[in-house]
Amino acid sequence: MINEKCLGYGTAPSLIRELFAYGLEKAKTVGPENVYDYSMGNPSIPAPAKVNESIRSIVGKEDPLKLHGYSLANGIEEVREAIAENLNRRFHCNAKAGELYLTCGCAPALVSVARALTSCPEDEFIINAPYFPEYNQFFTNAGAKLRIIPADTATFQLNFDRIEEALNEHTSAVVINSPNNPSGVVYSEETLRKLGDLLDKACAKYGHPIYIIADEPYRELVYDGVKVPFLPNLYPNTIVCYSWSKSLSLPGERIGYFYVNGRCADAEKVYAAASGAAREIGNVNAPTLIQRTVGLCVDEEPDLETYDKNRTLLYRSLVSYGYECVRPEGAFYLLVKAPGGDAEAFSEKAKREQNLLLVPCTGFGCPGYLRIAYCVSNEMIRRSLPAFQALLCDGKDESERR
Amino acid sequence: MINEKCLGYGTAPSLIRELFAYGLEKAKTVGPENVYDYSMGNPSIPAPAKVNESIRSIVGKEDPLKLHGYSLANGIEEVREAIAENLNRRFHCNAKAGELYLTCGCAPALVSVARALTSCPEDEFIINAPYFPEYNQFFTNAGAKLRIIPADTATFQLNFDRIEEALNEHTSAVVINSPNNPSGVVYSEETLRKLGDLLDKACAKYGHPIYIIADEPYRELVYDGVKVPFLPNLYPNTIVCYSWSKSLSLPGERIGYFYVNGRCADAEKVYAAASGAAREIGNVNAPTLIQRTVGLCVDEEPDLETYDKNRTLLYRSLVSYGYECVRPEGAFYLLVKAPGGDAEAFSEKAKREQNLLLVPCTGFGCPGYLRIAYCVSNEMIRRSLPAFQALLCDGKDESERR
Repeated sequence: MINEKCLGYGTAPSLIRELFAYGLEKAKTVGPENVYDYSMGNPSIPAPAKVNESIRSIVGKEDPLKLHGYSLANGIEEVREAIAENLNRRFHCNAKAGELYLTCGCAPALVSVARALTSCPEDEFIINAPYFPEYNQFFTNAGAKLRIIPADTATFQLNFDRIEEALNEHTSAVVINSPNNPSGVVYSEETLRKLGDLLDKACAKYGHPIYIIADEPYRELVYDGVKVPFLPNLYPNTIVCYSWSKSLSLPGERIGYFYVNGRCADAEKVYAAASGAAREIGNVNAPTLIQRTVGLCVDEEPDLETYDKNRTLLYRSLVSYGYECVRPEGAFYLLVKAPGGDAEAFSEKAKREQNLLLVPCTGFGCPGYLRIAYCVSNEMIRRSLPAFQALLCDGKDESERR
Repeated sequence: MINEKCLGYGTAPSLIRELFAYGLEKAKTVGPENVYDYSMGNPSIPAPAKVNESIRSIVGKEDPLKLHGYSLANGIEEVREAIAENLNRRFHCNAKAGELYLTCGCAPALVSVARALTSCPEDEFIINAPYFPEYNQFFTNAGAKLRIIPADTATFQLNFDRIEEALNEHTSAVVINSPNNPSGVVYSEETLRKLGDLLDKACAKYGHPIYIIADEPYRELVYDGVKVPFLPNLYPNTIVCYSWSKSLSLPGERIGYFYVNGRCADAEKVYAAASGAAREIGNVNAPTLIQRTVGLCVDEEPDLETYDKNRTLLYRSLVSYGYECVRPEGAFYLLVKAPGGDAEAFSEKAKREQNLLLVPCTGFGCPGYLRIAYCVSNEMIRRSLPAFQALLCDGKDESERR
C-alpha cells in the first residue's frame, strides 16, 4: 500500500546533496581548504542584524500566548499590511493585506497555487528551462501536465517560439523564475511584455485566463543596477510566489507568501482556491515568530556587495580562461557551458581531479551546462581558480588528442 | 481552470471561526466579561519559560548563517537525537534519530503519511469518530477513500463492531487520535490492544500490513494520572504524528514530526515514501530556530494544573446541573450531549440567549454533541456557569411544554 511515486521522490539520489556530502568527506583527507564546493544554494551572507534584534525584541515584549499562538491561516494582519506597504512603495502597485497569504516558505506557496489552478488532469503548466528541479514535484503533484520549454541558450531569456507552440486550450499557467536559478539571468521588461502580449492573445483565443506564476525568491539579488520588473504591473493575471529565504538569508525559517493582485482575473476565486489548497496540504499558518520578524524587517536589504564581488571575480576569471559563461545579473548562480559538451562527465572530472564541485544542469532542463553557486567565501573562489584553469587546459589537451 | 474542490475548502465557512468572530463582535456591545467563548482549541497556558529563554540563548550564541540556514529535510540531527532520547526514556522504546522526520506541525506530518500509504484510489483509511474535521482534507487529498466509523457514544472508546465491518483488502491504515479532540477521552490500553489484535488478524487475512496512524498532539495533556499507551510498543505497525502545539503551547510556530519505528512493517520504505510526500507538498524543512528550541525544551512539561482545574470545575458543575457529559481524561475538551438532541439548535440558542459559544460536533462526525474547549481562564468558566444553568432550565421548560 506504499505510494511508489512518493517512495521514488523519497529515495531519489540528490546530485547536489551527494556532491555536498562528497566535499565534506574529502575535506577530512585533503583539508577543507582544498575542496571547492559550489554545489549548494545556501546564502553565504548572514541575515541582517535587525533580524536577530527583532527576534529578541519580539520575544521580550510580546505576550507568549499571542506570540506562539495560531495566527489567521493567511498570516498576521499587521505583517501582511507591512508587506503590502513595502510592495506599494517599491512598485507603485496597490497591494492589500487581504491579497497576501503567508506560507511556510515559497515551496508550499507554489504547491498551493499550482493546485488552485488545476481543475482537471488535462490542464497544463508551461515551465521554462532552465528551471528549479523541484518544479517537477510541485506541479505534477497538482495533477496537471507539464510542458517543458527548452532554454533559448543564445540569450537565456524566454524561448518564445516554443512557448507559442505549447500554448493551447488546456494551458492554465506559465511558470517563470527570474532572477533565474540556475542561469542567474533576469528576464528583461521587453521579454516580460512580449510574454504578456502572447498570453493576452492566447487568453482571447481560448476564452479563459492564462496565468503567470512568478517564482521570485531572488527578486532582491540583482547587480549592475538591473531592475526586476514587477510582473503584476505588466500582466495583471500574475500570481507572485515569494520567500525571504535569500533576501533575508532565512531559508531554514520557512517564510514566504503568495500574492494575488486585485486586477488578476477571478482574483478572489484564485486566492480562495489557493487558500483551500494550502489548508489541504496542512499549511496551517506560517511560523508566527518569524512572521512578526519579517514584519519588522520587510524594508531590510541584502548585502549585495559580497555576492557581487564573488560574481565579478568568478565571471571575469572563468571568461578569461576560456569558459563560456552566461552573464549573471541576479541570484547567486553562474551558468557555464560544459567544456567538451558533457556536463556530467565534466562535473565528475572536476570532482575527481580538482575537488571542485559543480552541479550539472540536466535536472534543471539544461543539459550540457553546469551551475556554480557562488554563495561562498570570496577566498574560496580565489583558491579555486587554478582548479578551473587546470581543468580547461586538460580539456583542451584532450580534445586536441582526439 | 480553478480547482473547485480547493475553492470549496477556501470558501467553506468555518463554524469555529464564525463563533469566535461573533464573540469578538458581541464583546464590543455587552463587554468581553459577558461573552463566554469556548470555541477555540488554542492553548491558554503560555509556553514554558524555557522556550523563550532558549530562543534568546540560541539567537545569542549560534552563527546566524547556520541558525537560519536550511537544515536537512528531516531536521537537525542533534534535535532528532534529543527527541529520540526523550521518547526512549519515557516509553522504553528504541527510537532513533533517523526514524524521526520533523515537519511544519502535525498537519503536514499527517498529510505526508497519508500520501505515503496511498498506492491507488481504491485504498482506504478508517477514521474513528469523533475526529478532527480537517482529516477530511488531509486524507481525501492523498487520493484514498475514507471510511468513517461512528462513535461508540456509550464509552467513546473505539467502535469495534463497525471497525471490523469496515476492514477489507483495501484498508491501508486506521487513524486514531488519543487523547481525543473533541471528546477528551483517552483510549485505554485494553482498547488499543484489542485494536492491535483485530489488525493483526486483518493483516494476516489480507496479506499486507495495515498501519495505525496515531495523531497525538495531546499526548502530554492527561489528568488523574491516566497514561497514554505508546502505541508502537503495542502495535509495531504504528506511525506516530506529533506536534508541540499543545504540550509546549507553540501552535503558531509549526513544529511536529512523524515517527516510523524500526519494527514497523516496511519501516524504511514507509519513512522514505513519507519523506518524498513531504517534499512533494513543499515541506522543505521545519523552521530551524524552533527546531533548535524544541531540541532544548524536549523535556519540559506543560502546566497541567491549570487545565485540570478548569476541567474539574466545568465537568462537576455541568453534571450537577444535569448535563450529560463525557468524562474528559485528556486534551482540553469536554464533550456534552446537546439538551434536546439538536446540537446546532442548542449552540445557536446558547449564543443568542447567553453569549455562550459552544461548537456543535456534526463536523467531527458526532452529531447531537457539543464541544467545550476549556483552554480558557478559570474565571471565565466561573462567570459562565449561570449561563449553562439558565439554558438547561429553559430547555426543560421547553420540552415540558411540548
